[in-house]
Amino acid sequence: MNLDAALSTSKLLAGAAFLHFNDDSTWYVYLATLLADRYNKFNNRRRLSSLPVNDEFGLIRQWTNPYQTAAMQKSLGVVVGIGDDAAVVEMKAGFQLVLSSDTMVQDIHFNEKTMRMSDVGFKAMAAALSDLSAMGAIPKYALVSLTLPKNADITLSKQLYEGLYACADQFGVAIVGGDTTSTLGGWVVTIQVTGEIEAGMALLRSTASPGDIVFITGPLGCSAAGLDYLNTESPLKLDLNQSESIERLIEKHRRPLPQILAGRTLLHSGSCHALNDISDGLASEAWEIAEASKVGILLNEAMIPRNPDLILYAELAGKSAMDWILYGGEEYQLIGTAPKSQVAFIEQEFKKNQLDYHIIGEVTELFAGVRLLQLDDIEVEIAKKGYNHFA
Amino acid sequence: MNLDAALSTSKLLAGAAFLHFNDDSTWYVYLATLLADRYNKFNNRRRLSSLPVNDEFGLIRQWTNPYQTAAMQKSLGVVVGIGDDAAVVEMKAGFQLVLSSDTMVQDIHFNEKTMRMSDVGFKAMAAALSDLSAMGAIPKYALVSLTLPKNADITLSKQLYEGLYACADQFGVAIVGGDTTSTLGGWVVTIQVTGEIEAGMALLRSTASPGDIVFITGPLGCSAAGLDYLNTESPLKLDLNQSESIERLIEKHRRPLPQILAGRTLLHSGSCHALNDISDGLASEAWEIAEASKVGILLNEAMIPRNPDLILYAELAGKSAMDWILYGGEEYQLIGTAPKSQVAFIEQEFKKNQLDYHIIGEVTELFAGVRLLQLDDIEVEIAKKGYNHFA
Repeated sequence: MNLDAALSTSKLLAGAAFLHFNDDSTWYVYLATLLADRYNKFNNRRRLSSLPVNDEFGLIRQWTNPYQTAAMQKSLGVVVGIGDDAAVVEMKAGFQLVLSSDTMVQDIHFNEKTMRMSDVGFKAMAAALSDLSAMGAIPKYALVSLTLPKNADITLSKQLYEGLYACADQFGVAIVGGDTTSTLGGWVVTIQVTGEIEAGMALLRSTASPGDIVFITGPLGCSAAGLDYLNTESPLKLDLNQSESIERLIEKHRRPLPQILAGRTLLHSGSCHALNDISDGLASEAWEIAEASKVGILLNEAMIPRNPDLILYAELAGKSAMDWILYGGEEYQLIGTAPKSQVAFIEQEFKKNQLDYHIIGEVTELFAGVRLLQLDDIEVEIAKKGYNHFA
Repeated sequence: MNLDAALSTSKLLAGAAFLHFNDDSTWYVYLATLLADRYNKFNNRRRLSSLPVNDEFGLIRQWTNPYQTAAMQKSLGVVVGIGDDAAVVEMKAGFQLVLSSDTMVQDIHFNEKTMRMSDVGFKAMAAALSDLSAMGAIPKYALVSLTLPKNADITLSKQLYEGLYACADQFGVAIVGGDTTSTLGGWVVTIQVTGEIEAGMALLRSTASPGDIVFITGPLGCSAAGLDYLNTESPLKLDLNQSESIERLIEKHRRPLPQILAGRTLLHSGSCHALNDISDGLASEAWEIAEASKVGILLNEAMIPRNPDLILYAELAGKSAMDWILYGGEEYQLIGTAPKSQVAFIEQEFKKNQLDYHIIGEVTELFAGVRLLQLDDIEVEIAKKGYNHFA
């Protein structure tokens, strides 16, 4: 197929027709879509957005084709995937559905300085999957609702989808549909995920019990420290060792991993009381458990793990590592509670799966809310404040 | 509780705490939230959005409390509703899941002139449910992902939720969660819906067969005509009869109804081949069936129903009713195909359920794509073009 033919094909908004072409001509259609955009803009007959954006088929298929194959999707239980009014998927008997959605917004959750578009895609999927991990669920299906700026560079969408699929593939999630729209504002990415869970086994926030220990599944504050560096106006002079530390912090901000295996391990252990994912910071999530369970949570500063990269950067930047640990968000580690008698068993199960596990406090009925026993032995209430990217 | 107490409570972002208050004090907290916004803005210590918007609990609970009760949600199979990391819901054995999402964007799908915020909520839910109707599915659960402008008037969110719940209640849908974020741009509302369908029974776009008749479930073009009136710069002089006609057209633009019962009737009939919902206009949706099924569709202008309000307004405005019928979107009627031998049976089933049913053409293998046999007996190809609100 030559470019003219591809151009007129793409002008037909023939998203579905992509399926009939071989791989080479798909590239022509893609190229022609770009050209058609310019053509339409120039002629002012159709707005840029009307070609790729309003054609849900065309745009989604375009990015989707190279990724999950029909065979891969079928193996995940997909009966009808992208391309009809809705997706149809299988669910196992004896399981319940777990449903959640998460939205990332340009200039609120990310900007050009802090995230590449592939990171935005990866992290949007990771954030939604993190909600499933906090219930102990198995992630299964995702819908991608993408709202992109009119006149957005179309290659940015492609990068976004690369990140989305990278995360979905890593966690065995089939992307089965969604919606694509344009806006006069910035990018908005909503990921809706569906998981399954053994009936009656979901791990809630409201089931913490006085006497429980409080644990987390990994060190905190790294994402917020990485973001702090990305937002720094005057660059620090760094040696190689420091640069590598900061690279790792940035990676934790851009590509956090949902703790699906930890959630499953906790569910299988039968020993976890309450569970929550740390999306808005340790303080805020501990508060959510305390309020939902009508208990107090006492965190012990001496027991809270300190990531060496975080400590190094906090010293370099002259800032408080503990602030990032308590109030830094988007770490997607889990915070949970369990009876003291089960601590050794849970620790053993975590070790089997090569997972990290740190006891950081206990559940009490002596007060309501969340307190921190500081290194100086003074007990202070922790503010219930959330995470703000660009405050 | 007095206002000061309510104010400090709301400053704790104590969404979960709402549950402990009686109805009177909920109002105080709501009022206090408004005041706290002003306080925060004035003090510049926290941005307006950080209080209600970033607290998913607080905002969603605030609007949710007066609506679907725990008992109502339980009767719909909700195990864990709004307030944990994710919702947990029951699914029936022998059924498959049907998943879809739909996004409405300010200044793309609506603006202040064309829609009230309660209409935006209603229509966003209706659009998502329409996708389920086009598969023949039973709608069950919805997630609401709301992105609102920083400094948005908080009462607008309340109106939006009123419309969302009005539509959800009308179709027996439990709203079980979502996400709430802010943006520097305009409103973005994504509704994700989950339905269930008898295993293997989903009605697809790809199953139209030569010899089938083509039917629709109601007259088209009314929504586009209503929108045209709302976008008119110079108001027409109208008599009472004309005003009432236009009111009905506007209502069809603002509060279209998903054809859930028609979808279920078609699935139960066992006689429907292909099915699609008319969200982007008759032409575009007929094209989707023709392409997915690799057939031609011949529409017969003489058989296409004409709504009297539409005809009246087209004459008043000096515009083409047929253009709105073919290219006007967001009607949420269904277009389907069925074997000729089953026409009488389907019509009888539709009558039983007091549903509208119009045969408007046939499926053929003589050509590919969509053609219209005009009143002048000339056959023309119909452009595969979508629906543009503010072109």
